[in-house]
Amino acid sequence: MGVKIHDLTTPALIASSKAISENLLTMSKARPGDALRPHVKAHKCTSMAKLQKDHGHLNFTCATVREALGMAQAGLGNDLLIANEILDVASLNRLAELTTDISAQITLAVDSIETIDALCKSPIKQVLIDVNVGLPRCGCEPSQAGELAQLARSRGLLVRGVMGYEGHCVGLEDRSQRLDQVTTSMELLIEAHRDVGGEIISAGGTGTYDINRWANEIQAGSYVFMDSAYAKLGLPFHNSLAVLSTIISASQQGWMVCDTGLKSLGMDHGNPLITGAQVWFCSDEHTTFALASEGERQASYTIAPEIELPVHSSSTIGEKITVIPAHIDPTIAYHDVIHIISGDDVIDQWPIDLKGWAI
Amino acid sequence: MGVKIHDLTTPALIASSKAISENLLTMSKARPGDALRPHVKAHKCTSMAKLQKDHGHLNFTCATVREALGMAQAGLGNDLLIANEILDVASLNRLAELTTDISAQITLAVDSIETIDALCKSPIKQVLIDVNVGLPRCGCEPSQAGELAQLARSRGLLVRGVMGYEGHCVGLEDRSQRLDQVTTSMELLIEAHRDVGGEIISAGGTGTYDINRWANEIQAGSYVFMDSAYAKLGLPFHNSLAVLSTIISASQQGWMVCDTGLKSLGMDHGNPLITGAQVWFCSDEHTTFALASEGERQASYTIAPEIELPVHSSSTIGEKITVIPAHIDPTIAYHDVIHIISGDDVIDQWPIDLKGWAI
Repeated sequence: MGVKIHDLTTPALIASSKAISENLLTMSKARPGDALRPHVKAHKCTSMAKLQKDHGHLNFTCATVREALGMAQAGLGNDLLIANEILDVASLNRLAELTTDISAQITLAVDSIETIDALCKSPIKQVLIDVNVGLPRCGCEPSQAGELAQLARSRGLLVRGVMGYEGHCVGLEDRSQRLDQVTTSMELLIEAHRDVGGEIISAGGTGTYDINRWANEIQAGSYVFMDSAYAKLGLPFHNSLAVLSTIISASQQGWMVCDTGLKSLGMDHGNPLITGAQVWFCSDEHTTFALASEGERQASYTIAPEIELPVHSSSTIGEKITVIPAHIDPTIAYHDVIHIISGDDVIDQWPIDLKGWAI
Repeated sequence: MGVKIHDLTTPALIASSKAISENLLTMSKARPGDALRPHVKAHKCTSMAKLQKDHGHLNFTCATVREALGMAQAGLGNDLLIANEILDVASLNRLAELTTDISAQITLAVDSIETIDALCKSPIKQVLIDVNVGLPRCGCEPSQAGELAQLARSRGLLVRGVMGYEGHCVGLEDRSQRLDQVTTSMELLIEAHRDVGGEIISAGGTGTYDINRWANEIQAGSYVFMDSAYAKLGLPFHNSLAVLSTIISASQQGWMVCDTGLKSLGMDHGNPLITGAQVWFCSDEHTTFALASEGERQASYTIAPEIELPVHSSSTIGEKITVIPAHIDPTIAYHDVIHIISGDDVIDQWPIDLKGWAI
């Protein structure tokens, strides 16, 4: 007898094998091969990255040096982009040293003289010029990109192209508004690319994977699992991940409590969802909720049936339910393993092996 | 040459040795010995628990089975209260089995027939009756407590007393309002205790450690580190913990970006603080902020000088700064280690060894 979903200690991350497969297929049809550079920050899991590779995507995006090292060590180092500015020369040198005997190609984002200086002190020599396309975060001004590329080349770096993340657009619920803003952003990136050159124009995320026609590679990650924030966009991806939870208390006044809380859920996008319930608030190891009335039921998201254990009026203490995170990236980063579900069976356990920062 | 604060890979949790020592001393004077049952959920760190033991507190509070096991294995199992409802009989049995050869006394909270049933199927026989004192979470109605105690005793359990967490009061900024509401809550707990009996009346947290005179033990945890939410209460504890961060980008338009984000900060209490800056928003691995004007500077909190690296108008890319979490508990749960700082030196590294759930 194998492990069943109800045998798991809660809270536990569970994911539907079938829904993941369908999500991978849908994306690889829409953006085959190198047209997608899956972002591993969403799942932090080399088991998932291997499936993405099996679907034809050989190049990956990372957010941290630790993610890049883990990917290289797992044999997924064909073409790794750290889509982030790294000033820590010691970490870059360790990354280069630890991947010396592994076939790994590593490219970094740069957006300043200082980030170019840091790379020049390390053996890593490939860069993209990171361009600000409207999200107030990293990236140089579009008008500076050509100058930075020239500086990088003069310092011996190989400039492979540009990247620019339209993070302020990916979550816009109205598709036409999303398209308008992506157009504005990508016109800035294309303008920068004219000055920079190189073969890569990297951008995008799950919310713009089919809208962004300017970038030649999209850095989507969330599509494999989805979350309640992304579900509002009506994309053709299933919500395939949830936190399995146990009802541990029920009050006479109508609320119930389960054992999933702030330490098993990313909370920056707000409270999680529980099918059939209205969530009141989360504490460190608890979520308080009540049965939803008809009018309150939120039906704007669909969850893979294998991982949907809703609350009913007959639900009792000890019963397992599932909690749908509002934001998967910071949710997954709290856990050690994802339990892969088929029917009632736990058919695999994927270590979340790309967490942390120091290498 | 030892490791210096500026050598650490960021993001990294850092804590001031001096400020921790002062916090431990302040609390142990106010609530010596068994008058405090430190809650380990705040720090999830047996190195810290050992210091708390050295300050005379031999009994501890845990939120999870995993925390209790880790404490017992670290030799801190004198009297461990899991202040939570556990329905997972398999985990309770594993906990009992794994602590068979260790001197560990374990007590659980119960608030229902089902939680009593679960304990009756395990070798763990000591309980507190968990009473709802106003926070809509776990705990039975005060009027049910006596009946539940009777049931527990009739099933062979040892009822050691009551607990009731006034979590809706601990964060109230106005001290007299805090006192009023604690009074109301604790009158309910005392009423329940009259029906239940037993020597323990367990309640409270850092926000009510000196207000709650009804409980004979207080379950405070945050006082050792503090956070920007608790700092508003004006308690005599220093903010001793921060996330060390590197400025990785600076825009011509005035904002800057550091490498601490949603995966290194608990976000349920909102954005973190950066001395000298106004925080705009956090992404997975980034916080965007700008220099604060005079009027915007938030001076309502004090940070141990050893861990305060503020932003200045002269701050540059590559410079280290510190980010003060709004809520420490879910912040610490993202990290693997706390670096203990004295002056510029990293004098110790404490593993955050009580994370996770499955045992």
